[in-house]
Amino acid sequence: MSAPASLLSAQPLVRPIGLADGRQRAVIDAVLPCVDNGRFAAKCVAGEPFAVEAHCFVEGHDMLRVMLHWQREGEASWTEVEMALKWNDEWHAQFVPPVPGRYRYNVEAWVDAFESWHHELERRVDAADIRIAARVGAAEILAAADRAREAGQAQDATRLQGWALALEARAADVGEDAALLKGQALDETLASIVRRYPDRRHATALKPGFPLVVDRPLARYSTWYELFPRSASPEPGRHGTFADVQALLPGIAKMGFDVLYFPPIHPVGRMQRKGRNNALVTEDGDVGSPWAIGAEEGGHDAILPALGTHEDFRALVKAARGHGLEIALDIAFQCAPDHPWVKEHPAWFKWRPDGTVQYAENPPKKYQDIYPFNFESEDWEGMWLALKGVLDHWIAQGVTVFRVDNPHTKAFPFWEWAIGEVKRAHPQVIFLAEAFTRPKVMHRLAKLGFSQSYTYFTWRNTKEELVAYFTELSSRPGLDYFRPNVWPNTPDILHAQLQTGSDAMFRLRLVLAAMLSASYGIYGPAYELKEHLPRHEGSEEYLDSEKYQLRHWDRGRADSLAPYIAHLNAIRRAHPALQRNEGLVFLPIDNDQLIAWVKQSPDGQDVIVTVVNLDPHHAQWGWLQFDPAAMGFGVEPGQSFQMHDLLGGERFMCQGARHFIRLDPAVSVAHVMHLLRKTRSERDFDYYQ
Amino acid sequence: MSAPASLLSAQPLVRPIGLADGRQRAVIDAVLPCVDNGRFAAKCVAGEPFAVEAHCFVEGHDMLRVMLHWQREGEASWTEVEMALKWNDEWHAQFVPPVPGRYRYNVEAWVDAFESWHHELERRVDAADIRIAARVGAAEILAAADRAREAGQAQDATRLQGWALALEARAADVGEDAALLKGQALDETLASIVRRYPDRRHATALKPGFPLVVDRPLARYSTWYELFPRSASPEPGRHGTFADVQALLPGIAKMGFDVLYFPPIHPVGRMQRKGRNNALVTEDGDVGSPWAIGAEEGGHDAILPALGTHEDFRALVKAARGHGLEIALDIAFQCAPDHPWVKEHPAWFKWRPDGTVQYAENPPKKYQDIYPFNFESEDWEGMWLALKGVLDHWIAQGVTVFRVDNPHTKAFPFWEWAIGEVKRAHPQVIFLAEAFTRPKVMHRLAKLGFSQSYTYFTWRNTKEELVAYFTELSSRPGLDYFRPNVWPNTPDILHAQLQTGSDAMFRLRLVLAAMLSASYGIYGPAYELKEHLPRHEGSEEYLDSEKYQLRHWDRGRADSLAPYIAHLNAIRRAHPALQRNEGLVFLPIDNDQLIAWVKQSPDGQDVIVTVVNLDPHHAQWGWLQFDPAAMGFGVEPGQSFQMHDLLGGERFMCQGARHFIRLDPAVSVAHVMHLLRKTRSERDFDYYQ
Repeated sequence: MSAPASLLSAQPLVRPIGLADGRQRAVIDAVLPCVDNGRFAAKCVAGEPFAVEAHCFVEGHDMLRVMLHWQREGEASWTEVEMALKWNDEWHAQFVPPVPGRYRYNVEAWVDAFESWHHELERRVDAADIRIAARVGAAEILAAADRAREAGQAQDATRLQGWALALEARAADVGEDAALLKGQALDETLASIVRRYPDRRHATALKPGFPLVVDRPLARYSTWYELFPRSASPEPGRHGTFADVQALLPGIAKMGFDVLYFPPIHPVGRMQRKGRNNALVTEDGDVGSPWAIGAEEGGHDAILPALGTHEDFRALVKAARGHGLEIALDIAFQCAPDHPWVKEHPAWFKWRPDGTVQYAENPPKKYQDIYPFNFESEDWEGMWLALKGVLDHWIAQGVTVFRVDNPHTKAFPFWEWAIGEVKRAHPQVIFLAEAFTRPKVMHRLAKLGFSQSYTYFTWRNTKEELVAYFTELSSRPGLDYFRPNVWPNTPDILHAQLQTGSDAMFRLRLVLAAMLSASYGIYGPAYELKEHLPRHEGSEEYLDSEKYQLRHWDRGRADSLAPYIAHLNAIRRAHPALQRNEGLVFLPIDNDQLIAWVKQSPDGQDVIVTVVNLDPHHAQWGWLQFDPAAMGFGVEPGQSFQMHDLLGGERFMCQGARHFIRLDPAVSVAHVMHLLRKTRSERDFDYYQ
Repeated sequence: MSAPASLLSAQPLVRPIGLADGRQRAVIDAVLPCVDNGRFAAKCVAGEPFAVEAHCFVEGHDMLRVMLHWQREGEASWTEVEMALKWNDEWHAQFVPPVPGRYRYNVEAWVDAFESWHHELERRVDAADIRIAARVGAAEILAAADRAREAGQAQDATRLQGWALALEARAADVGEDAALLKGQALDETLASIVRRYPDRRHATALKPGFPLVVDRPLARYSTWYELFPRSASPEPGRHGTFADVQALLPGIAKMGFDVLYFPPIHPVGRMQRKGRNNALVTEDGDVGSPWAIGAEEGGHDAILPALGTHEDFRALVKAARGHGLEIALDIAFQCAPDHPWVKEHPAWFKWRPDGTVQYAENPPKKYQDIYPFNFESEDWEGMWLALKGVLDHWIAQGVTVFRVDNPHTKAFPFWEWAIGEVKRAHPQVIFLAEAFTRPKVMHRLAKLGFSQSYTYFTWRNTKEELVAYFTELSSRPGLDYFRPNVWPNTPDILHAQLQTGSDAMFRLRLVLAAMLSASYGIYGPAYELKEHLPRHEGSEEYLDSEKYQLRHWDRGRADSLAPYIAHLNAIRRAHPALQRNEGLVFLPIDNDQLIAWVKQSPDGQDVIVTVVNLDPHHAQWGWLQFDPAAMGFGVEPGQSFQMHDLLGGERFMCQGARHFIRLDPAVSVAHVMHLLRKTRSERDFDYYQ
């Protein structure tokens, strides 16, 4: 034998990462939500439960206790919620953040000697084992009594001590009945006292926890209407004003919108001003692009005089509130060549050797009327502060929602800072990122703090595309931080599908947007009036786009989709299932032109099944697979149920899992069906109402 | 107007996380592999490329440069490899760690003014624009010249300066041809010099980078054979010895194994020793369970005298090496009641009030002959050091592979520390985790440092189960750190499928293990001799299990599967496609009893298609979907190819994407087919060989 003298080494013990003591045995393998391991904040809504899942375990058969901690940032203390094990080492708990703001949450886990003992004793049947276990438990209870006393809870301490001594005494009495002893040892009332004084000396927690941004409900569920105030005049040819917009508010509110969004309202540059249809030369009276911001009248903190004054604007904001509408302003951080900042802060722009600034380009698009900011400026601090000042200025005027133009062409660290700062002071403010760009870039912006994000919806047209995209949008990890806002059209995007002007196509894209996504918007009145001519074949630009000229709209036209929009938005407002993105499940239907899905409210009470015919020309039919019994929607197997079509008004009597669907676009492009379950009494006498 | 006097706030600028300067504009959104954000190490193999992917971008249209850095831990300097953009903001590079050990890698990205300029100029056609661009570029090149000079590269500096001045001069000459000027500005030779001196002042990196464990190839690809040395005697009834095992080495090597693994070889406890078939009382001559470690002869550093001495053991290790076999030892950190440590270190065990230690249990299994260590011991440091001392002891005897028994019943922080320490000193050592437990626990052990992991393979039997499980095993995130080792049987698990003793079932489970997983093992000679009787109906325990008694095996039996095993292992050895887990793709085949998949080597040269009939009773047939042209396997569309069945020897002439397969288990349970592509010359004259 050549065994060494001793296995006991004298070498120092280098501890693994984060380990203070080898007895920190509880493992927290993961915490969800978790955006890039806590580098970025998850998002939720004030007044609603925020659910946290933690993957925790320990070696062997010992029992854990796991706590969820949360606090509003800056508060001294944390609130604690006990987590419960569901299955597969997944522990769950939730809390309701009361008000918007920045919060933190974390998970703490420890191996609990009392729970381990309790759990083991429950399974003991052998009398000798029970007697020994009672003595082991008595020691644990005594230790808890000591901790109670240290915590100043003398009464609990005394009670636990009494229990421990009684157990000890009865365990020593060989005449004692083991079953009775076990019963006493498992006393639930006393156990609940012990549980108040756990031994957390060797608890594990993940430092420094996870950030959470809590928004108000509008961030989760919103319905947007975009219009150009300058086209709001009821008289053809007259420049619209804020007062004109004010007159439109009742009609917009009647359509069921809650956010009214304006393109930039600032003075429009005169240098390099664009003419109609993006012409490089202007004609008399050309109003230019509102995104060419700034002229001698002022820049990002000024208002185009033709629209009105700051006072008019504040009056409009107030009037909109009265109609349940919030005004969203477009934040486009760029300057017309005659923006005052170009002269005042030349360091914020990138000058070329010929003394010019390279105008903005997004090949093949050229924006000769726009100078981009230079985010490599030596004076980046001054520029950042000024840009954030723009946000502060409009917040001071009552604006609480910003739609940010092309955020992906401004430095990403700027947004993290600016949104973070603004929301620290004004947690109610909502930012929508207008970034139609590569997927990772769009996700980064959402991580950096944008409350909502534009999406690829406009270009997701087939069933396969829609199913894949909305499955992604309603799944982790994006679900935790990326809130989609889907738009069937924008002033920049007239999709080829709409260029036919097909009434059915305009309706079906609306139904898809309104029923698939908790937030959606349209650019009107172009949408409800089915404006559909492109600037030229193959272009996604509108002909005679409002981006470059005033337009006069006949809002009262008989074929306007306004009543249909109002109907869809009323359905959204009445059904919580439609006001969130999680819980979306696509349903099989054996026709590629028919797409079907179900959404449910968190409490499972509200269930909406939508089926859309993607073919605007022909009736399509097929068999829908929908089994409310198997999906846990409160229908017993074999029981009949009703599907109430909220769009068409029909009530379908259904049973089983397969249902025949036929949709003729000449009649209706979609069913939006509310699942009606009958109570037992209704089932008895009211079967065929 | 009520605009504020100035938007320029005097408030201090609070910077976002990790941002030193607002001009750090490059974003590194993710780095892959990344195990829990770098909390744990990814794994790879020395001498083989380790591929890293980084998701990097910047706002707008500027160009990035991205570098991969890597170093062996403890080295002062990093090696740098330029990453290349593939698509979707995904940058790729790889490096080859030369030897086993702990490494780190990281990614650095910066916005590169020269690349941005170069990229923009390439698209310029307007002569005035080109002239301005040439002057902009000249300034960038001059700056690079300065950096070259600072780096002591005077020659490069002079050359760049010359280029810059020439560009400047020609740009100023209005007679100069713009196309020629552009050509000179885009000179690739000179550009490559500029690229050596980038401006990294505002580079971004993720601190502190990502750890990497580099193993030797055996960690990736290994073939294990388990036997009980005490049953190795050729004479029935005699206790086997290391010398007996030595005599078996040629046969084991001939079967194609490279790891020979023994259950514990230590003195077996006498107190509470188990009898045959796990009986609580022993009869004369009962040898007990080798997992009941320790007796008066010694503990974890001792050898059961009946097996031999340390000298014999070292001789066996050496002889095995001569046959291409490494000895793997079972590390079971637990003690028989008469293990010396129980008396020497009572603090390492959990004593009950009656002066006993609670024996190990894994309900319903009871291990009355085993005391677990108490990982809550006050002397945890002493115990950790002693347990690691066991590993050091056997490493000193030449052992380089450990199979760790039930690691999930020992504290997780211990493994991270012990494996980390051992591998820092001995990077060649391989640890296999025998944890048949919940999925998150098994994954945690792999993250903590185990080189390989037992799996659920034994209980994945249907096509659906196998496809789902092996898809998971060959996918991220597990693929980066969890290396499966699959076992059709173990001394603890005789699966119900094998209890019929069906020759076809024993063969098909072998083919699944050997062809699906880069590492697999069997417990022999029980497997090759088709040992199949359970201890009782419904049990997964073997009847007359070697765990509790000596067994005598007739290794030369005519129906032994040894030649079949040798054949499978020879195929594995000849085909790199089978020696790794990534790149597995299951193929559609329209029969639920037939399962088919393709594996390919990293260079795409070696392609193996396996089809297994999961029904051991009946012939099964179906259409296999396999299109080597569409899968990029070097077959032109429409071209024929051969599939050479390495098991049966047939050569199938194939074309197109659908292939008829029929497998009769009476003939063969599987095809293991090597894709043969013909060169052009072969195609001309050798078509029907």
